Amino acid sequence: ANTLRIAVLPGDGIGTEVTQATLAVLEPLAKRHNLGLDFEHLRAGAFCYRDTGTAMSEETFDKAAKADAILLGAMGWPEIRTTDGTEIAPQLDLRFRLNLYAGVRPFRALPGVPVALADPRARDIDLVIVRESTEGLFFSRDRGTVTHDMAEETLRITRPVTEKLARFSFRLAQQRATRRGRKGNVTLVDKANVFRAFAFMRGIFNEVATEYPDVAHGAHYVDAMALDLVRKPWAFDVLPTENMFGDILSDLGAGLVGGMGFAPSADIGDTHAVFQPAHGTAPDIAGKGLANPTATILSAAMMLDWLAGKGAGQAYADAAAELDAAVDGAFAEGLRTADIGGSDGTAAAARAVAARIGG
Amino acid sequence: ANTLRIAVLPGDGIGTEVTQATLAVLEPLAKRHNLGLDFEHLRAGAFCYRDTGTAMSEETFDKAAKADAILLGAMGWPEIRTTDGTEIAPQLDLRFRLNLYAGVRPFRALPGVPVALADPRARDIDLVIVRESTEGLFFSRDRGTVTHDMAEETLRITRPVTEKLARFSFRLAQQRATRRGRKGNVTLVDKANVFRAFAFMRGIFNEVATEYPDVAHGAHYVDAMALDLVRKPWAFDVLPTENMFGDILSDLGAGLVGGMGFAPSADIGDTHAVFQPAHGTAPDIAGKGLANPTATILSAAMMLDWLAGKGAGQAYADAAAELDAAVDGAFAEGLRTADIGGSDGTAAAARAVAARIGG
Ligand SMILES: CC(C)[C@H](C(=O)O)[C@@H](O)C(=O)O
Ligand SMILES: CC(C)[C@H](C(=O)O)[C@@H](O)C(=O)O
Repeated sequence: ANTLRIAVLPGDGIGTEVTQATLAVLEPLAKRHNLGLDFEHLRAGAFCYRDTGTAMSEETFDKAAKADAILLGAMGWPEIRTTDGTEIAPQLDLRFRLNLYAGVRPFRALPGVPVALADPRARDIDLVIVRESTEGLFFSRDRGTVTHDMAEETLRITRPVTEKLARFSFRLAQQRATRRGRKGNVTLVDKANVFRAFAFMRGIFNEVATEYPDVAHGAHYVDAMALDLVRKPWAFDVLPTENMFGDILSDLGAGLVGGMGFAPSADIGDTHAVFQPAHGTAPDIAGKGLANPTATILSAAMMLDWLAGKGAGQAYADAAAELDAAVDGAFAEGLRTADIGGSDGTAAAARAVAARIGG
Repeated sequence: ANTLRIAVLPGDGIGTEVTQATLAVLEPLAKRHNLGLDFEHLRAGAFCYRDTGTAMSEETFDKAAKADAILLGAMGWPEIRTTDGTEIAPQLDLRFRLNLYAGVRPFRALPGVPVALADPRARDIDLVIVRESTEGLFFSRDRGTVTHDMAEETLRITRPVTEKLARFSFRLAQQRATRRGRKGNVTLVDKANVFRAFAFMRGIFNEVATEYPDVAHGAHYVDAMALDLVRKPWAFDVLPTENMFGDILSDLGAGLVGGMGFAPSADIGDTHAVFQPAHGTAPDIAGKGLANPTATILSAAMMLDWLAGKGAGQAYADAAAELDAAVDGAFAEGLRTADIGGSDGTAAAARAVAARIGG
């Protein structure tokens, strides 16, 4: 088999811990499925900025960009900030510079993991937020203007990116429909009642929707969606949205299914992709071996699946499915990480998952 | 007693129904407390726009602006839109034109009303979102630029408004601390890790905080707050935030305590204030007598309390407290509106609350 190069950027805080745990699981998995994975460790993040003056060197960026996929831990640290007061977040640079417009954030209740809502249907939550990740309000990052009395940021939405985001979402809904045996459903989340830019976005979305008559579609205002994600999250399937809205709603979604420790993500473009847990660096528990590595392990499964879709071969898809099943199995059979009140630390969680590979 | 003039704008859809129900409750309450309330009904909203070409005439605006307070139902209708694709929302014009910078949205679990979260502490939810309501992303309303390929909106944050928002929030926390017998706590919700405008906002907030050493304060990123509102909403007290963030988080908050039917609001400025339920016009149930009027009734209680604070007299504060208690009592003793699975319609709910006045 060909060797695929994976750029590994552990980052800061618990980023390094969950990355290590994930690699410990990927190793036996790769062996078993005969995947030729070659991991190249790269340094970037807040501590890299503190020590070297840059959060991610051009050399590191080039290496990451040339890899077949990028696996990222978490980056940022509250006390380490740029002169404008914002935090160090080279993961945002990767999204922008590699045009990773589709921020895929799936939410599913894992067996045995407590869900937040009282309604028993909350166990059926199975939805994906597709957060546009290159423009929207985040277009304004590093571009905001600040005077003594006023600050402004610009939210930008473009037709080409919106079309791509919509097509990506409809295709994802088609794939999920096949897997789940029911019709796919795409709900755009916008604020078209108040803003022209969102009326514009909705217009483009509706145009693209006509190309996918097999998928149901609709649109929701973002405030109504925040409500419905609390009232009936089981009713949704694929939810494309603007960058800032997706950031907010995806943390809400994580809260529904056990917290950020259970929220994997993939930032996907036409050619590149970054896979990382949706959580941050968790300064409060960093270095203690307590972090839940599940989100990162599930992100690695998304990576293998994406590589399969890029032609790496069926073995990658099989490995992804086995990894997902191993995580489910571990929790179903009693794994309880600290974030859900259990006593299993990072390494124990990785061992529990690894033990189910090839089993 | 002096007569106070209340401008009543029922608006569209269920707006008219919940307004009528609220007035039916205010009547016996005003009689009992000897409040001199004079209600002036004014027309504005989506159907007004359809029929007359303007959503709110200048004459109506002037009358509303001259009243002592404004009570609003709900406005907007999906099928009635302006040429740029957005909806008719004269309530936004009132916020902007009357400088109602503090959008006060309290969330409390009423006795007998089911809460969304499984954790029993969810019954202790008692928090207030203070949504800045004149700038932020909404500064851009009617100002967005749209070409064939791109649309842009501007988020604006100013020092004077941020200072006012912060002071309002700290004073509110002080009042709540007295009432609740525990130290107040103000948590700014921003996205200062990524945007200069929010780092600017946080800086101003921290300056103002030094004026209120008796109140605890902190700041949260908006995504983390969306998570924490699902994980531990009982831990928060007063949450000032940017306009768009407040719009999203307040629907989330409503979802936690029974839905929009239980979400009152007040848009407060230095001299004027509008009181309205946080919900919309609910086209699906409009005209059926099914709408839950609780949010509007509780908004009216906020109005009476605000009038008391403006010097209308203790009778107004007493009436507000009695109205709050009547709502609590009605639900505690079995009132079940349709939105929470019961069979009590709009009029029945109003009767149940009115029956507890003077009781
Ligand atoms: C860390 C932060 C810059 C980042 C974001 O805002 O995108 C994070 O919240 C995320 O969701 O990936
Ligand atoms: C109806 C709409 C324009 C309004 C808003 O976005 O402010 C509503 O959602 C609210 O929260 O008051």
